[in-house]
Amino acid sequence: MPVNLAAPNPADLHPVPGVEIGIAMAGVRKANRRDLTVITLEPGAAVAGVFTQNRFCAAPVQLCQRHLEAGGEIRALLVNTGNANAGTGADGLVRARSTCAALAARLGVAPEQVLPFSTGVIMETLPNERIEAALPAALADRKAAAWDAAAEAIMTTDTVAKAASRRVTIGGVPVTVTGIAKGAGMIRPNMATMLGFVATDANVAPGALRALVREAADRSFNRITVDGDTSTNDSFVLIASRRAPHAEIAALDTPEGRALRQAVVAVAEQLAQAIVRDGEGATKFITVRVEGGRSEDECRRVAYAIAHSPLVKTAFFASDPNLGRILAAVGYAGIDDLDQGLIDLHLDDVHVATRGGRHPAYQEADGQRVMKQSEITVRVDLHRTEGAGRPQATVWTCDLSHDYVTINADYRS
Amino acid sequence: MPVNLAAPNPADLHPVPGVEIGIAMAGVRKANRRDLTVITLEPGAAVAGVFTQNRFCAAPVQLCQRHLEAGGEIRALLVNTGNANAGTGADGLVRARSTCAALAARLGVAPEQVLPFSTGVIMETLPNERIEAALPAALADRKAAAWDAAAEAIMTTDTVAKAASRRVTIGGVPVTVTGIAKGAGMIRPNMATMLGFVATDANVAPGALRALVREAADRSFNRITVDGDTSTNDSFVLIASRRAPHAEIAALDTPEGRALRQAVVAVAEQLAQAIVRDGEGATKFITVRVEGGRSEDECRRVAYAIAHSPLVKTAFFASDPNLGRILAAVGYAGIDDLDQGLIDLHLDDVHVATRGGRHPAYQEADGQRVMKQSEITVRVDLHRTEGAGRPQATVWTCDLSHDYVTINADYRS
Repeated sequence: MPVNLAAPNPADLHPVPGVEIGIAMAGVRKANRRDLTVITLEPGAAVAGVFTQNRFCAAPVQLCQRHLEAGGEIRALLVNTGNANAGTGADGLVRARSTCAALAARLGVAPEQVLPFSTGVIMETLPNERIEAALPAALADRKAAAWDAAAEAIMTTDTVAKAASRRVTIGGVPVTVTGIAKGAGMIRPNMATMLGFVATDANVAPGALRALVREAADRSFNRITVDGDTSTNDSFVLIASRRAPHAEIAALDTPEGRALRQAVVAVAEQLAQAIVRDGEGATKFITVRVEGGRSEDECRRVAYAIAHSPLVKTAFFASDPNLGRILAAVGYAGIDDLDQGLIDLHLDDVHVATRGGRHPAYQEADGQRVMKQSEITVRVDLHRTEGAGRPQATVWTCDLSHDYVTINADYRS
Repeated sequence: MPVNLAAPNPADLHPVPGVEIGIAMAGVRKANRRDLTVITLEPGAAVAGVFTQNRFCAAPVQLCQRHLEAGGEIRALLVNTGNANAGTGADGLVRARSTCAALAARLGVAPEQVLPFSTGVIMETLPNERIEAALPAALADRKAAAWDAAAEAIMTTDTVAKAASRRVTIGGVPVTVTGIAKGAGMIRPNMATMLGFVATDANVAPGALRALVREAADRSFNRITVDGDTSTNDSFVLIASRRAPHAEIAALDTPEGRALRQAVVAVAEQLAQAIVRDGEGATKFITVRVEGGRSEDECRRVAYAIAHSPLVKTAFFASDPNLGRILAAVGYAGIDDLDQGLIDLHLDDVHVATRGGRHPAYQEADGQRVMKQSEITVRVDLHRTEGAGRPQATVWTCDLSHDYVTINADYRS
């Protein structure tokens, strides 16, 4: 059961002018499943993306990067679920390229103008013929108001579709930002087994869009972890159809740039948090905030050590305030000159530890009360820096439950 | 159920001349539990140790390091289970020191001649008065042939006591190496939540003993992982009573030094593997061997990425040859210039992947056959170096099962 996360209401997902979505059943892994999504863009759109840091990155990720670097105008995105086309060697590239070429031919564009995305099982041969055969149906299905259907079509072990939408006024005109994401396991910084697609009709210059996709990823998808496994296929793409009739946004540090940035980051953050809320087997949504490190990177490392610890995560699952496990994770986060005698630990409003030891006023009943909640904030102060503006980092994660094991032990069956 | 691991036969555990062990019930956490172990050494013994890298190291770990650095002759080790005395701040140090002083007074030695060890729950106040009250009973219980009882007395979530013993001839005289260990969770390189005590009567110089304890740890306890959590309390101590009547071993690269080294490493390796075989919830014992990196460290990093991956571990639990998850872990191990097109993957004798993709001859039935075994070897060849003598590293781990979650969700109840 996802943690405080409901399926999106289709009426809340505003269509983005210049962007259409079509879905079909290709039978990639299972029959009768809407597993193929085509997103087409009218001419003039700008597209930017960030991709997994995994060196075993999937064939479609390699092609996406090449096609974006080629600099041609992107006219379509092609997404299949059920098969990741990762760990498939040279043959995987050939098959991914074949699907791009097939869609490009039907749209009358070049194969490099198509971006391919795959998610699902690794090291299985992509059934590209079945995908290509389903393209006419997907293209015929296209409409602007299909974001809810696309959010469902890209799911793997997700239990709830994930979508978010915002409207914002830029240069006096209404602008839309709408996005979808998937991913419930193999989730860790540097992109998760996640696909994220966010589109806006804002008129933003390609350079500013590239900066924005990085910033949005850093403030959303790169702050989450479910199981610490960095996937082979993570991709986050930001599309600007540029059809809104305001002056072009050339830089993000303008009033218009900031308005767009705020909306895009909000949508990306909502999608990223939705992935954690629907983390495999999740029963709790945990915010880990670390303050007072010497740098943001140091704070982030400590936050991830806590968020990745199986012992911390099982304690959350059990609602057991076995909070020394959090201190242990702080200790092995890799800060060589850490002084444990300075550390403070809060669980929501409860002061659990001070100067590296149990707080004199801490009562187990107080820890227990917070641990039973479905949303919990862990706050660690390293006290290596003090004062306003000192470094901090926040990471979102979930607990580790029996269902995580069940889901991942049964995934392919 | 531990994987192919039985409790030791007391008759196989040879006493070590000059070393006696006494056990008592102190009621540290639970009543009627033999939770306190005292090991006393006759004058003339040498002791060396390696300790957790966790910066939140427990009070007893801090004291052990200080007492060893002080250079006095160690005359006793004091071990309690049920309470880790970690995350206890300055008060924890005071209490640990008090137990050392109490035991030292009864033995007529200085507090610095006692090494304290604790394992159990973190961030709880050590009941040092109860420990001190039980010292007379522990001292009265002392005998040489109590290694099996000590192996039981130091257990926490272990399901089977862990002990190993070897006899070896050095300089024409028989020498004994006998050791015990505990630890079933919070297990990861740089020492696990493990305590390991190995004693020998070999006459080895203190400097050589210090080198030997490091080498033995690197070839045993520092090659295992259960859940990737580095504990606050890990300690591995090597005791030489020096009573065997052979010439003193001043260096390890002599015939006598090599004979001792081989026996000590064999005992440490057997104990380390026993910890993994009894890993929390373990149903399979996995050997991960990585070859052909540019350095041993690179190979080790890849091996640990595989051994820590929750997705890989749940696939082993399910006997599901979802082996692309292993490739994904190789990809995120942190080798920036990794060429996925070179990678080979074997599962025991089955060639699963070649050149980064599925091997043409690989059949799922073959992978399935190996995955059903209780002992499995994963072999990855990075092909970044070739030829004899190229770098390699081996790590031992277990699978991730429902019982891991159950054990760690229920630990304190």
